[in-house]
Amino acid sequence: MTEIVLPEDSNVHGSIFGGRVLALVDKCAAIVAIRHARCEVVTASLDSVDFKSGVHVGDVLVLHGRLNAVFGSSMEIEIEVHSEDPRTGSRRVTTRAYVTMVTVTKDGLPRPAPRLALERPEDIERAQAAAERRQARITRRS
Amino acid sequence: MTEIVLPEDSNVHGSIFGGRVLALVDKCAAIVAIRHARCEVVTASLDSVDFKSGVHVGDVLVLHGRLNAVFGSSMEIEIEVHSEDPRTGSRRVTTRAYVTMVTVTKDGLPRPAPRLALERPEDIERAQAAAERRQARITRRS
Amino acid sequence: MTEIVLPEDSNVHGSIFGGRVLALVDKCAAIVAIRHARCEVVTASLDSVDFKSGVHVGDVLVLHGRLNAVFGSSMEIEIEVHSEDPRTGSRRVTTRAYVTMVTVTKDGLPRPAPRLALERPEDIERAQAAAERRQARITRRS
Amino acid sequence: MTEIVLPEDSNVHGSIFGGRVLALVDKCAAIVAIRHARCEVVTASLDSVDFKSGVHVGDVLVLHGRLNAVFGSSMEIEIEVHSEDPRTGSRRVTTRAYVTMVTVTKDGLPRPAPRLALERPEDIERAQAAAERRQARITRRS
Amino acid sequence: MTEIVLPEDSNVHGSIFGGRVLALVDKCAAIVAIRHARCEVVTASLDSVDFKSGVHVGDVLVLHGRLNAVFGSSMEIEIEVHSEDPRTGSRRVTTRAYVTMVTVTKDGLPRPAPRLALERPEDIERAQAAAERRQARITRRS
Amino acid sequence: MTEIVLPEDSNVHGSIFGGRVLALVDKCAAIVAIRHARCEVVTASLDSVDFKSGVHVGDVLVLHGRLNAVFGSSMEIEIEVHSEDPRTGSRRVTTRAYVTMVTVTKDGLPRPAPRLALERPEDIERAQAAAERRQARITRRS
Repeated sequence: MTEIVLPEDSNVHGSIFGGRVLALVDKCAAIVAIRHARCEVVTASLDSVDFKSGVHVGDVLVLHGRLNAVFGSSMEIEIEVHSEDPRTGSRRVTTRAYVTMVTVTKDGLPRPAPRLALERPEDIERAQAAAERRQARITRRS
Repeated sequence: MTEIVLPEDSNVHGSIFGGRVLALVDKCAAIVAIRHARCEVVTASLDSVDFKSGVHVGDVLVLHGRLNAVFGSSMEIEIEVHSEDPRTGSRRVTTRAYVTMVTVTKDGLPRPAPRLALERPEDIERAQAAAERRQARITRRS
Repeated sequence: MTEIVLPEDSNVHGSIFGGRVLALVDKCAAIVAIRHARCEVVTASLDSVDFKSGVHVGDVLVLHGRLNAVFGSSMEIEIEVHSEDPRTGSRRVTTRAYVTMVTVTKDGLPRPAPRLALERPEDIERAQAAAERRQARITRRS
Repeated sequence: MTEIVLPEDSNVHGSIFGGRVLALVDKCAAIVAIRHARCEVVTASLDSVDFKSGVHVGDVLVLHGRLNAVFGSSMEIEIEVHSEDPRTGSRRVTTRAYVTMVTVTKDGLPRPAPRLALERPEDIERAQAAAERRQARITRRS
Repeated sequence: MTEIVLPEDSNVHGSIFGGRVLALVDKCAAIVAIRHARCEVVTASLDSVDFKSGVHVGDVLVLHGRLNAVFGSSMEIEIEVHSEDPRTGSRRVTTRAYVTMVTVTKDGLPRPAPRLALERPEDIERAQAAAERRQARITRRS
Repeated sequence: MTEIVLPEDSNVHGSIFGGRVLALVDKCAAIVAIRHARCEVVTASLDSVDFKSGVHVGDVLVLHGRLNAVFGSSMEIEIEVHSEDPRTGSRRVTTRAYVTMVTVTKDGLPRPAPRLALERPEDIERAQAAAERRQARITRRS
């Protein structure tokens, strides 16, 4: 998912709004989740995000999404946002975000998501890190 | 800040997108920050947010923002998002978010924000809780 | 209802479009009307509005809405639009507008709106002024 | 100026928002004014408007703009909005609006607008009616 | 159909995006088609388009649409896009496009469009040129 | 580049507008061109496009862009648009488009684009096919 930053997305001094990046993060996470679950999804939570460096008008934003783990009806999706200055080709990580999406029926009730095949060792490691973050979310809420 | 949820903001089954709520949260936090700092601001971070209940087409979203504390050039702003079903008048908290905004010069460099007068005991308590969350953010990043 | 003026809302020399202010006025009036009537509403009329002073990119627009009176299925809502330069804190009234909204059924037919309790003397005065403006509207149409 | 009403413009029960019509009216008036004045313009006022009939999703909106009169730096533009159901071809006047636009310099200060040649008797009649409405606006403001 | 080019439509150096012009071309063609067919339509194809000259922020775009011919359920619509610098009044053809629209039922299946009365010699010539372009499209696809 | 089709992009019977697909095609081609040329670009032409199958609300659009050839200051970019029904996982080619972009200076004048390294046999074949299409464009214009 690649997006060019246009004037309409920017504040008065030409930086992109954090809220605009967050809207793209959520959209990208929803596409990853729908592709896996093959049904409607809703956003349940977003872990803390830092905006490491400014994004400016004319930059190209590149979002990479990856499904880390499935827990019953919820899924953890990791989104990495790079910003690229097309005039120099330099690219930096702007934000990394963990979004939890829940699969829902047509009436908006949670329904089980398909399991995720974890084949390579790095997939298993990622799912374990996701399970730890999930535990932290449950602790945080209570 | 009050916003009605329109069809354009919703996904296929009529719930509002998390990303749309986040964009409103960021906009509301920017207004609170600009009013205090009287200069441009950029979003530095957003603490974890949970979407506690669905928001539907036709609901009215009400956002309340409050400046909790100022730390040099950064400010913690707390945003509470309520959703209200205008047909029944019932209102629920949908999301609570902590946004960190940084005051910047015209060239985008950080500059000190005006101090915040903490007069009432609850203001002091809020600033202390913000200082603890700030410590957690610094720990998280490293 | 608070709204920051962004570049996308402005014309070539950085002033906000009158049409953009009017769209916010209508939205704010609809929220006031729906909250009182607890049902769908449509805009029936807008009294003459003057744009007293320019609004510029970076200004914060603040809209206050108030329900002045209920006449059968129609309601008069008064909207005051302030523009605030967040760099100086100066705030001015930009526009004051009187919007008439009509409560409608799902099929778009008029239905009675709930009566408005007029308790304080200033509420009664406001309702009387609204009744006079209503009379002027009826005269104007015929 | 012709515009088709899309779902994004509509409220929950499929009628177009008054505010959306008003934004089109302002845009159309600005185009008429800029074409005559050959410089930037700002909206000074909008006379009372009634929304005579509902506009629905799928309807085609047709806006006709006409410059009625020039008074120093201000111009009165009349906008007639028709809504057309393309499935039946029936067309109705939805709104008629009188917009006052002021020609401005690059710094936003008023500057004289070119005079309007009034050749046909109906043009002269229209300019006279505009002068009467202008008198009413001046009375209203004071 | 007249449209003023606003900052939100432009790229970083103030020219309008080709994609924005194409979206207006498609919208204008749909309005022409719906008015003739009195039913829903979908875009089937767009012939090659050249952007002959740049369009800049502040220009007024004027689109003229004309129905050239009807072939069963499909229609050829010709759109001429002029750009006008309102400060000088100079107007140039920016793009000319041929759009093929297909009339469809509520379920999206093709249905016959009403025939087009060809009365004047130039109408007949235009329909013949359209038939040749249609032949080229059929050849191109196979 | 991946994009989910939302209600706001659709016409009354739930198909996406051709114009919306074209706007995405142009945006995707601009990103490919800017990344190669490392400067601003403008759209010069779009070859004929057919919309092979309908795209519906809830579908995911996937755009793939590829730079085929560079000719002085102009570049041919090929965009393939797939639509994917996320509920079934079925994916179809919806549109294939050839966009010509021209590299420009800050003043909007053409400037040479960097040459394209053609290493693999299929790259050379693609550049040759692009040169033939370019010849056809030159013929078409004259």
